[in-house]
Amino acid sequence: MNFRSDNETPVNETILRAIIDANHGFEESYGYDSYSNLFNKQCQNLFQCWVETLPLATGTAANSIAMALCCPPYGAIFCHESAHLNADECGAPEMFTGGAKLIPLPGQHGKIDVDILEKKLASSGRHGEHEVLSSVISLTQSTEAGTVYTLDELKTFKKLKEKYQVALHMDGARFANALVSLNCTAAEMTWQSGIDLLSFGATKNGAMMAESLLVFNPKYTTQILRHRKRSGHLISKMRYITSQLVAYLNDDLWIKLARHANEQAHYFATQVESQIELIHPVEANEVFCRLSTSKILSLKAQGYEFHVWPDSDDIIRLVFSHATERKDVNQLVKAIELLY
Amino acid sequence: MNFRSDNETPVNETILRAIIDANHGFEESYGYDSYSNLFNKQCQNLFQCWVETLPLATGTAANSIAMALCCPPYGAIFCHESAHLNADECGAPEMFTGGAKLIPLPGQHGKIDVDILEKKLASSGRHGEHEVLSSVISLTQSTEAGTVYTLDELKTFKKLKEKYQVALHMDGARFANALVSLNCTAAEMTWQSGIDLLSFGATKNGAMMAESLLVFNPKYTTQILRHRKRSGHLISKMRYITSQLVAYLNDDLWIKLARHANEQAHYFATQVESQIELIHPVEANEVFCRLSTSKILSLKAQGYEFHVWPDSDDIIRLVFSHATERKDVNQLVKAIELLY
Amino acid sequence: MNFRSDNETPVNETILRAIIDANHGFEESYGYDSYSNLFNKQCQNLFQCWVETLPLATGTAANSIAMALCCPPYGAIFCHESAHLNADECGAPEMFTGGAKLIPLPGQHGKIDVDILEKKLASSGRHGEHEVLSSVISLTQSTEAGTVYTLDELKTFKKLKEKYQVALHMDGARFANALVSLNCTAAEMTWQSGIDLLSFGATKNGAMMAESLLVFNPKYTTQILRHRKRSGHLISKMRYITSQLVAYLNDDLWIKLARHANEQAHYFATQVESQIELIHPVEANEVFCRLSTSKILSLKAQGYEFHVWPDSDDIIRLVFSHATERKDVNQLVKAIELLY
Amino acid sequence: MNFRSDNETPVNETILRAIIDANHGFEESYGYDSYSNLFNKQCQNLFQCWVETLPLATGTAANSIAMALCCPPYGAIFCHESAHLNADECGAPEMFTGGAKLIPLPGQHGKIDVDILEKKLASSGRHGEHEVLSSVISLTQSTEAGTVYTLDELKTFKKLKEKYQVALHMDGARFANALVSLNCTAAEMTWQSGIDLLSFGATKNGAMMAESLLVFNPKYTTQILRHRKRSGHLISKMRYITSQLVAYLNDDLWIKLARHANEQAHYFATQVESQIELIHPVEANEVFCRLSTSKILSLKAQGYEFHVWPDSDDIIRLVFSHATERKDVNQLVKAIELLY
Repeated sequence: MNFRSDNETPVNETILRAIIDANHGFEESYGYDSYSNLFNKQCQNLFQCWVETLPLATGTAANSIAMALCCPPYGAIFCHESAHLNADECGAPEMFTGGAKLIPLPGQHGKIDVDILEKKLASSGRHGEHEVLSSVISLTQSTEAGTVYTLDELKTFKKLKEKYQVALHMDGARFANALVSLNCTAAEMTWQSGIDLLSFGATKNGAMMAESLLVFNPKYTTQILRHRKRSGHLISKMRYITSQLVAYLNDDLWIKLARHANEQAHYFATQVESQIELIHPVEANEVFCRLSTSKILSLKAQGYEFHVWPDSDDIIRLVFSHATERKDVNQLVKAIELLY
Repeated sequence: MNFRSDNETPVNETILRAIIDANHGFEESYGYDSYSNLFNKQCQNLFQCWVETLPLATGTAANSIAMALCCPPYGAIFCHESAHLNADECGAPEMFTGGAKLIPLPGQHGKIDVDILEKKLASSGRHGEHEVLSSVISLTQSTEAGTVYTLDELKTFKKLKEKYQVALHMDGARFANALVSLNCTAAEMTWQSGIDLLSFGATKNGAMMAESLLVFNPKYTTQILRHRKRSGHLISKMRYITSQLVAYLNDDLWIKLARHANEQAHYFATQVESQIELIHPVEANEVFCRLSTSKILSLKAQGYEFHVWPDSDDIIRLVFSHATERKDVNQLVKAIELLY
Repeated sequence: MNFRSDNETPVNETILRAIIDANHGFEESYGYDSYSNLFNKQCQNLFQCWVETLPLATGTAANSIAMALCCPPYGAIFCHESAHLNADECGAPEMFTGGAKLIPLPGQHGKIDVDILEKKLASSGRHGEHEVLSSVISLTQSTEAGTVYTLDELKTFKKLKEKYQVALHMDGARFANALVSLNCTAAEMTWQSGIDLLSFGATKNGAMMAESLLVFNPKYTTQILRHRKRSGHLISKMRYITSQLVAYLNDDLWIKLARHANEQAHYFATQVESQIELIHPVEANEVFCRLSTSKILSLKAQGYEFHVWPDSDDIIRLVFSHATERKDVNQLVKAIELLY
Repeated sequence: MNFRSDNETPVNETILRAIIDANHGFEESYGYDSYSNLFNKQCQNLFQCWVETLPLATGTAANSIAMALCCPPYGAIFCHESAHLNADECGAPEMFTGGAKLIPLPGQHGKIDVDILEKKLASSGRHGEHEVLSSVISLTQSTEAGTVYTLDELKTFKKLKEKYQVALHMDGARFANALVSLNCTAAEMTWQSGIDLLSFGATKNGAMMAESLLVFNPKYTTQILRHRKRSGHLISKMRYITSQLVAYLNDDLWIKLARHANEQAHYFATQVESQIELIHPVEANEVFCRLSTSKILSLKAQGYEFHVWPDSDDIIRLVFSHATERKDVNQLVKAIELLY
């Protein structure tokens, strides 16, 4: 039973059906297909504002093109030290920006410590051209720790962004899970909270390979198409990406899928929290918990798949997804109970 | 009727079926799926040699990662001036290599003029560190003009490559069309002709989005996985790419599709060559021909879709593909006959 | 006797004296010395306009930072195929811009063929994001062939620049030689002719190591100091660069030195033109002429130092400089006469 | 009286004399001058080993070219968070490497905390291609805190370097001050302690603008000349750099100058340590001490120049140099005494 990653899930049937339906005859390539346009309209409705949409096949591409749009080669990107951007993309943001510097920041439960960030921003610039230029703050929502920034927390970053004249980016690889968690509108969680650019993920939540960079601030759209093309991310038969995105947003499918995932995570946490230590608050679709090495080995031997967290021996991550079935969760709960 | 680009074709039904079949349950992500391994084995059989395979979603990624593997930032890449690498990728090879210089070369019918290339290679290095380092020759097979380098021609490049100690790359976005045209083995057209790296395309010939970089020379595989990851081209749900590639190679599907495409192009050329001027020999699946502006407009008005070639007013390109039906070719032939 | 390069000349005594005079006590570093300010004022007087001045130690740095200021990573730089930028800087402009593409253009006597340039500019953009963005034209004044663009010729480029909305850069490694040749004002040869950025060279014309990027168009000065710093070109003890530049411009020293150099070149050309073929018009301080291999060897055996031009066996370049003495020119003239 | 930076000092008279002496007649450019060769021989003698020498005008160039030689674009550079490389070069290492990631490490008194470094190195690689490749450790000797790694400490880094197969770089902008402090041989402090590449500084210690990258490990010299050229750091009239370096090493001038500087720092520290808090051990030519804001203002008002350290209000840095006179130190000591 797989609790390792939402990247290992199959494609949701409705989305697969949309891909199959898109497969009739010839259709214009390179983003001039009808779905590209439709997806943009859906986003304008969803976010209730003007928005530039750039469909892509990977989240790393979305994050890195976002950085290239708002951070010069001599710029600084502030993010949590555990952010995908910093820890899991093998220097992609550095490559796409032409050499920007990521400033990894600490903070509990995967959230940037605002005081440390403000201190960094405040001292920046004193040293003139000898230091890099503060350019962007990147938040991950939901975070790598499975937590979710509240709207109030987001507003704190909005203030910093405005005070220090930097861009604000959201890595929304698990955007839907966060939105369901906050139970707010997509507008509230993004541009109304000062977000300029959003990496909007769909792959983990049921798509095959479909992400989109969304830009709410026209200032950060300069030559956005060339940024995609020069990094090799312009898909020729784009309709097979965009048809996924359209189906994903249709009829609130994405919300339903994320709600299901979050519910499994919360259900699991509720069931086991009296027995095992939860490392982070469970606010989206991931649960981090402490287990002894022998218990970890026992679960693995029983066929449960999950990650033991790097730099630790006794912390595991369990990911619940659109494809996780309640019966499998129950079985895992029982297996854990039997360990005690 | 669409003769504009093989990028606008639908996905072949067998390949689509393979994608659907891949959609069962969880499967390891990031290239550790079972199809990735299978595809590598297919390639070893097909090319009858050791080969590194790097599945990707776009041809620009394949070309650019290839360049990053064999050309340093201070290197020179020799290619035809019309090569996709040079003319259609918005500087992607420059981005991936960290600033290498493309040396565009002239040559009839889309093929590099060997004498000019040799002269460039011979004079290179006289000026020491003041000039870039000759690093790689990139050939497009079939070419942007729809022609195909013969095995003898390829051997001339092999000699140059060995003499000047550079790498030899083949952009095989239309590899299958060229192979069918030469009626030789995949090994003969590649590593036996000195090819070190091959961008092996499947998308134009029936896949949804599936290409692979193939490296025959282990010297050019250093950190190949990191090159893919840092450019954002590591697809998380990789099985949906690799299952396409596996189906593509199975039962010679790729050969059948390319043969069909080439046959349509040749049939068309044979039918019209007494009436209109063919600009290049028709050796693969593309036909370039001269038509007056009024005739071009007339065809367009009748619903025929094709590109008028850049930098010309009276040259059109017609692309025939796996999805082109003979009846549509016949109809186009008739429409052209009626113009005269 | 050295006619090989003005890079091999000693430092003019007045400039050396200025360096020595600058060597008293402590002085603020990193460009906050008094000479930096003074040099900027001199330039404003000289060019009769606002101008940003960025002192540097090398011409390659000046050219490459200029490109970084006006050309994005996905941009195209149009220059003569023999331009230093393209042929002699080992990809520095590509490195500084983060991967821009240089488009080398042909043209007689080292000057860009305007018609070919216009054709390139006119066709650019038709292919959208698939191609690089036309961003800057770079002219070398005087050219690598020792010729000088006339004010009328410069105005043609100004028109193209305005029509196609690109920047106009002048590589003035031998700016003084060109200015003396045209006998016009520095303003006329630069911003009044549409030049946005100028690499203003002093090293070849008598300085030790002193160049400056000059920017006439404020649009191209964004973060200019960071561009210098991040490429390692911010000299800590800057006073030793800027004191050279101040002395160079003082009392028209630079004009006198360049006039002397040009005069030697013209004198030489006049003396020998009845006997040997001059390859290019002699308009600045360089003479290119054709000599048989045996005559070349004979001159070399007599101790005359000069370059045989790359890609040729019978063309030599003779460079005349601020340090060339008339008696040496006379001796060379005689040596050539004796060959016939 | 200037205690602000050794970058603000004048050129030592012997070095200036060497520059003047170099100014006779023509001399081959671009590093083919006689001094370049001589300097290399001096270094081989000094370090008692084979060594590649690359003369340069700035320390940032030396550091950044060093990184480009030993760290790929997808690599990680480990250094102290206060290292010049990380904090004061506006992203130059990122630019020269094509996007490598600097991993800033904490540690007391400007020295990397070895345990934290080892932990980082040990955990690196677990995550495969998703993370950057550990490539180099860079030490600053003497450090930004004016301290000096002992030979034993250096050997700890040597062991880590060998265990984790990374390169070891030393930023020796103040190499002479450290060497005098340790009273060991140049060989002991470098290659015998595992150093592969050394940024050897002379500017702060009496030169005008002269640094050199020294590479002890031939593995890290690939295309070193092209790295210098493509970053614009090949000085045409190189003799004026290399003559400085030759004079600097001649007759142990560099040792005498550094010894003088260190002695002033120690003398000062000894005189004031009973009254004011010294922040770091005084081991080279810099003294960091705590003073109240009012005392700082009082000293400044009296004409003493120094830096108040960033991110603090009450810590000042005093730099003592080859040009610092004992009488000025005495005067400063008295001024401080009078504050209490």
